[in-house]
Amino acid sequence: MYSDEKVFNKMVERRRDFHRYPETGWTEFRTTSKIAESMTDVGMDIRFAGDFVQIEHVLGRNADIEAQVTRAVIQGASPEMIEKMKGLTGLTAEIDTGRPGPVTAIRFDIDCVDTTETGGSSHLPRQLGFNSVNPNCMHACAHDGHTAIGMTLAEELFSEKSSLKGKVRFIFQPAEEGARGGFAFVKSGAVDDADYFLTFHLGLGNPTGTVFGGTDGFLYSTKIDADYRGVGAHAGAEPQKGKNALLAAASAALSIHGIAPSPDGLTRTNVGVLNAGDGRNVVPPKAHMKIETRGATEDAAIYIYRAVMRILHGAAEMYDVKLTTQKCGEAISATSDRELAKIVMEAASSVCGVDRTDLIQPMAGSDDACWMMKKVQDNGGKATYIGIGADTKAGHHNDHFDFDEKAMLIAFEVLYKTVFMLNGK
Amino acid sequence: MYSDEKVFNKMVERRRDFHRYPETGWTEFRTTSKIAESMTDVGMDIRFAGDFVQIEHVLGRNADIEAQVTRAVIQGASPEMIEKMKGLTGLTAEIDTGRPGPVTAIRFDIDCVDTTETGGSSHLPRQLGFNSVNPNCMHACAHDGHTAIGMTLAEELFSEKSSLKGKVRFIFQPAEEGARGGFAFVKSGAVDDADYFLTFHLGLGNPTGTVFGGTDGFLYSTKIDADYRGVGAHAGAEPQKGKNALLAAASAALSIHGIAPSPDGLTRTNVGVLNAGDGRNVVPPKAHMKIETRGATEDAAIYIYRAVMRILHGAAEMYDVKLTTQKCGEAISATSDRELAKIVMEAASSVCGVDRTDLIQPMAGSDDACWMMKKVQDNGGKATYIGIGADTKAGHHNDHFDFDEKAMLIAFEVLYKTVFMLNGK
Amino acid sequence: MYSDEKVFNKMVERRRDFHRYPETGWTEFRTTSKIAESMTDVGMDIRFAGDFVQIEHVLGRNADIEAQVTRAVIQGASPEMIEKMKGLTGLTAEIDTGRPGPVTAIRFDIDCVDTTETGGSSHLPRQLGFNSVNPNCMHACAHDGHTAIGMTLAEELFSEKSSLKGKVRFIFQPAEEGARGGFAFVKSGAVDDADYFLTFHLGLGNPTGTVFGGTDGFLYSTKIDADYRGVGAHAGAEPQKGKNALLAAASAALSIHGIAPSPDGLTRTNVGVLNAGDGRNVVPPKAHMKIETRGATEDAAIYIYRAVMRILHGAAEMYDVKLTTQKCGEAISATSDRELAKIVMEAASSVCGVDRTDLIQPMAGSDDACWMMKKVQDNGGKATYIGIGADTKAGHHNDHFDFDEKAMLIAFEVLYKTVFMLNGK
Amino acid sequence: MYSDEKVFNKMVERRRDFHRYPETGWTEFRTTSKIAESMTDVGMDIRFAGDFVQIEHVLGRNADIEAQVTRAVIQGASPEMIEKMKGLTGLTAEIDTGRPGPVTAIRFDIDCVDTTETGGSSHLPRQLGFNSVNPNCMHACAHDGHTAIGMTLAEELFSEKSSLKGKVRFIFQPAEEGARGGFAFVKSGAVDDADYFLTFHLGLGNPTGTVFGGTDGFLYSTKIDADYRGVGAHAGAEPQKGKNALLAAASAALSIHGIAPSPDGLTRTNVGVLNAGDGRNVVPPKAHMKIETRGATEDAAIYIYRAVMRILHGAAEMYDVKLTTQKCGEAISATSDRELAKIVMEAASSVCGVDRTDLIQPMAGSDDACWMMKKVQDNGGKATYIGIGADTKAGHHNDHFDFDEKAMLIAFEVLYKTVFMLNGK
Repeated sequence: MYSDEKVFNKMVERRRDFHRYPETGWTEFRTTSKIAESMTDVGMDIRFAGDFVQIEHVLGRNADIEAQVTRAVIQGASPEMIEKMKGLTGLTAEIDTGRPGPVTAIRFDIDCVDTTETGGSSHLPRQLGFNSVNPNCMHACAHDGHTAIGMTLAEELFSEKSSLKGKVRFIFQPAEEGARGGFAFVKSGAVDDADYFLTFHLGLGNPTGTVFGGTDGFLYSTKIDADYRGVGAHAGAEPQKGKNALLAAASAALSIHGIAPSPDGLTRTNVGVLNAGDGRNVVPPKAHMKIETRGATEDAAIYIYRAVMRILHGAAEMYDVKLTTQKCGEAISATSDRELAKIVMEAASSVCGVDRTDLIQPMAGSDDACWMMKKVQDNGGKATYIGIGADTKAGHHNDHFDFDEKAMLIAFEVLYKTVFMLNGK
Repeated sequence: MYSDEKVFNKMVERRRDFHRYPETGWTEFRTTSKIAESMTDVGMDIRFAGDFVQIEHVLGRNADIEAQVTRAVIQGASPEMIEKMKGLTGLTAEIDTGRPGPVTAIRFDIDCVDTTETGGSSHLPRQLGFNSVNPNCMHACAHDGHTAIGMTLAEELFSEKSSLKGKVRFIFQPAEEGARGGFAFVKSGAVDDADYFLTFHLGLGNPTGTVFGGTDGFLYSTKIDADYRGVGAHAGAEPQKGKNALLAAASAALSIHGIAPSPDGLTRTNVGVLNAGDGRNVVPPKAHMKIETRGATEDAAIYIYRAVMRILHGAAEMYDVKLTTQKCGEAISATSDRELAKIVMEAASSVCGVDRTDLIQPMAGSDDACWMMKKVQDNGGKATYIGIGADTKAGHHNDHFDFDEKAMLIAFEVLYKTVFMLNGK
Repeated sequence: MYSDEKVFNKMVERRRDFHRYPETGWTEFRTTSKIAESMTDVGMDIRFAGDFVQIEHVLGRNADIEAQVTRAVIQGASPEMIEKMKGLTGLTAEIDTGRPGPVTAIRFDIDCVDTTETGGSSHLPRQLGFNSVNPNCMHACAHDGHTAIGMTLAEELFSEKSSLKGKVRFIFQPAEEGARGGFAFVKSGAVDDADYFLTFHLGLGNPTGTVFGGTDGFLYSTKIDADYRGVGAHAGAEPQKGKNALLAAASAALSIHGIAPSPDGLTRTNVGVLNAGDGRNVVPPKAHMKIETRGATEDAAIYIYRAVMRILHGAAEMYDVKLTTQKCGEAISATSDRELAKIVMEAASSVCGVDRTDLIQPMAGSDDACWMMKKVQDNGGKATYIGIGADTKAGHHNDHFDFDEKAMLIAFEVLYKTVFMLNGK
Repeated sequence: MYSDEKVFNKMVERRRDFHRYPETGWTEFRTTSKIAESMTDVGMDIRFAGDFVQIEHVLGRNADIEAQVTRAVIQGASPEMIEKMKGLTGLTAEIDTGRPGPVTAIRFDIDCVDTTETGGSSHLPRQLGFNSVNPNCMHACAHDGHTAIGMTLAEELFSEKSSLKGKVRFIFQPAEEGARGGFAFVKSGAVDDADYFLTFHLGLGNPTGTVFGGTDGFLYSTKIDADYRGVGAHAGAEPQKGKNALLAAASAALSIHGIAPSPDGLTRTNVGVLNAGDGRNVVPPKAHMKIETRGATEDAAIYIYRAVMRILHGAAEMYDVKLTTQKCGEAISATSDRELAKIVMEAASSVCGVDRTDLIQPMAGSDDACWMMKKVQDNGGKATYIGIGADTKAGHHNDHFDFDEKAMLIAFEVLYKTVFMLNGK
């Protein structure tokens, strides 16, 4: 049996290491390398995404891969591991007991959020010196914790392999933010044979000690990159010769945020990034926007997506600029199986520090784990998205985000016990 | 006497070299180094801006100086020269004849425009391989030509020192774009003793062969950096907790471009750059805008500046975000002295290739040389801003801009002859 | 006992008469006159709003009352009745049995929507010749039906007075649209002594034959009139002298519709009307907006109201115009009592044509009947808002709206039977 | 010879009468009637517009003509005169001397501005009780003065008929505001035979005592009515079913005011009126805008017109609403003939109260008299647009506008003397 203290200390150490070196989706080379090294060290079989993911299913992988690899190596990634990755991040590790039994897949997301961490003196990561060193990269959604839990859980369960049956697969998925990685992993067959699928999230507005067996209310989502291309001109001498891409984007952004809500099913949209213009005295010839849409139902999702696209085109006409768009991420909705959620609740009930358990938490966000949940369910399996409460210092994605590390031990134990309930010999 | 062909070839070579390595205002370390080396080679006295400019007069110097110095050295700047610069770019070189006579100061601007040069195959700099290697930096306003002319003119006049009287000072000014460098140079006393002040611009919509003795109609101008600071939040789960800096900036940009024109004196404003947001699914917590205002009269300048500031503040209130602004550039208006302009016209009339001369060209742009013109005039001297026509491939600041290099020889000869008319023994 | 056919025909006739002469809130002089005449004819006691409503509780009464009175008389209102109204519309009529028993108050809203009825040939009111003759006035929310039902119900119940106990009060409330009338009626004490409070709505997306005992999910709401006052100027010759109220309003409208939704409780806002400017070639010196806000909870209501007010002020600053605002309507939320809703369900179950009954319908609109519901509940009474399904040709407030008149008979019978269950001897 | 005092008093009386009853373009029934009665009284031949203007050349005549005729009669128009008008306002009156000589046409514009006159106590028209009684109608551009001058000049010159030769035609043109009437009058042949064409304007920023022989710099102009048609819906319950015409118009208005200025020739545009929406709680199904464009050159005029149309279409796409547009006014540019302007200057030089005369005043507005000027010039005649300075209390079109009535006598005398110089026997 594992030692609580040892497990907890290992997770804290790992989480802080990942927190210091956050990597945005499809660039998690250092993170993948660290996971791969640990899994290999204990003797587990691993498969890199580069070995099973087909490139045509990869969404939103726009980073300068070469530069990112260089950075990752400088920051401690193993060059040999990186070579094996073939440019794609993420991996799976598996415990194959050799005994008949169910296949249980557990997914951990490993990427960071594109935001710059606060340098404020009251921010714990800064006080303790593990704040992000990568600009515009921050673990502001607890995936550093998820990854640390996943690695540690894999090691501890692997050491109990003789008490288990069937298979337990650990999926370390890249690029959850932007809903870019889940689709490719599902298409690669990573959960095709799974009887049970588990994933989880820390925080989500619930305090440390709360555990939900499942989660409902995931939103359909698309991620759109939009580019306006106009014509630059001297803004003082001949502004009339320019075609202003910045104003097209500004006008589109205001209108997109003004799309009427749909009561048929909650809708959300966000223009998260707008970068436009070259220089102060040049009519801005180009603008780039990162947009997302969300809808609680397929109809609502289509409604909001179409409205956004129509606005983007209309603004292009208004300002006589050219529009190109790219769908670079997509998530669907899925429902947690009640039976499986009940098993998780039961597992959670005996975990130290858990003072409230409930079947289902409502949600109004997106997670591309839904692709996996739906795939498993379509194949006749059961899937659930566990909610592990964790006190937080600020909302998810906020630059002051930080979570109560004690929740990691709760997550570890809930998952550990659930796996034993599903795959115990 | 100089050889036309040799002078022309030297200017072309230098201009193309500068074109390949454009440097934005206050980072012209390589350019300053190259000028300094040439001036020193022929034996002229030079003074670096670092030796006479006071830092409190420097506007809009926000670049990462250390990184720029590193880049400049990699691109061929002399480390010794750079050390002498003490972090500030630009320099003056002087011919002191030792004989009584007027002091004539000639100003050349050396910085580039913040835009990315086209990669189009019909673009001559690309065809001939001297297109910019520095991202978002391009000599799209002919300052590469100005610099090449200035260096060559200084050399040739220096070799005729014995035929001259008084002093001829060559001012290589950094950071003309954004009206950031002129003010500091004037405050340093660079033109305090000048009896005559000359500067010029290639192009400005006039064909090769046209020369104007002076220019009128310069616009007052301010350069404003505006930053909105809001609050990030998960755009799907709790958008109401965010304060959206991107929308504040978008709203301000639309309103700024809608400020009513003032017939009391032409007004212009431009939001040239807008960068907002961190990530696609985060309510954008910050936005940065680069804005400029222009006015033909002091009243018009004040009108448009106040309107912009009012809009910036109003949009902050609308979106409940914090605003900080910084004035990082400023230019005034000035008038060319007719007497001096007539001398230039006379000089131009005998220059080969000049087929049209005129006294004054009208203008609707800004140039911080006006600070120098006004200073010289206030001290009782004469100043003019010469217009040297040059065919261009696209408007100034456009990414397809390129000018007819033959105009450089015309500029050289007009200035050479003018100096002889003013300072000839 | 009443005759279904006679009752139905009377309601149809009355509804179509009201439909032809729709009157916006606080101008229902003809409607009030018709109700008063009918109630008086059968011998009921009536009290005009002018006799009990205090003017300081009246919200959003901006119409030209004199002109409206003139119009009403031309359209058939009784001059004597109008004189008794003292300028305020609405009335109550009461059956006082003289026997001990509960006081039951039933509320009927009588005003129209501010929209112009379609002239389309497929529109039944037009085909049958009872379409609106009053511009920008249309019974597009079924209050014509409500009024007809109320009058007929009062008459029929009055004729059964001997079988009843306690009191039954019929409240014909003006100005429900815009949430302007309910508050004043409550403040006047109209429901202070009520043991039971009933009101209802036809349609609301449910088909004919459906009856809900109660309704939940009413939204808090405020109605805001905002006026910008700028300065006019000749738009061609001296636009810079103007202060543009139209652009301030346009900018505010776009931003108001972009307020982030609050998941803590649904929020809604609408700029329903924007009228700005005087003439084509004048910088628009004034703008008027009619805005509403809604929130599912008090917190959500405060959030959205404050955001709107902040935007209105910010836009005033942006465009240097003056802002005045007036809160001219307000509604709160209320919950239907389950016990009373069950009684209604029971009554409905035996009504011919009812094929589905349910306890509570969810709602996402506002109704100022909630002031009355809350008052009765605060006094220890029971209140419910009954849902009477009715097929409609288009959404509520749409200019093609029309409802299935058969639903009026269902409403009549449900209410009739419910009253007998509450006040039957 | 005329008596200054009598003439002045008559003009003041007439001007104040017209000021009290201002009439917008194509509804000047009372004004036309008053002019017709006076002209007839002295025995002049008159022709009503209804007798020579073809309806297909009439632009922007959207008023409810029947209602306006009723109003005009109530306000003192002669029913017989109105019958002769056949629905069209404006007229010409002619002095035909029967002697050979030039044909001189003088044009007076008679319509008001669409704005509501201030009720402020410092406003002279209010103090003296001749402020406008017609809502949204105000003589805020001195056409009341123009009309009074024209009538009085016609009478006085007619009384000197025996001293004149050729013909003098007085054109009282409707609908100058919005550039709606001039085109129709030219098309009707009203100036086809004119050798000289004179018109004038009071004020225009010049003080009383200043006279300009001519005016240059008139702007091309178009007047566009734009209508968006969307879909109404209940703003709280089903906003997603609406198509928001108000936001389309708001977005278009902001973008139209942000069209980049053209230095090739001054451009102007104005969204002078925006009326949108039906009711507060209805998604606004319709919006109406009154827009104008102006350009100093034909190219500039085309540039700005096309930009406006593109924006209108783009905003329609953004908000999924239907757009219809109508060009309801158009003016061109024209240049004053120097020879004729000199004659006017000479005439002015001997007028009492004139203390400054100049040849040409620059202009940045539009006047559809340019259609007449151009027609006369194309036929070989001479035309000029005289500037008569007048002190004003506020800018033209401002609701506080009022002008120094003494300028009317100057205008009268300048025109009187000019006519004698052209048509004196």
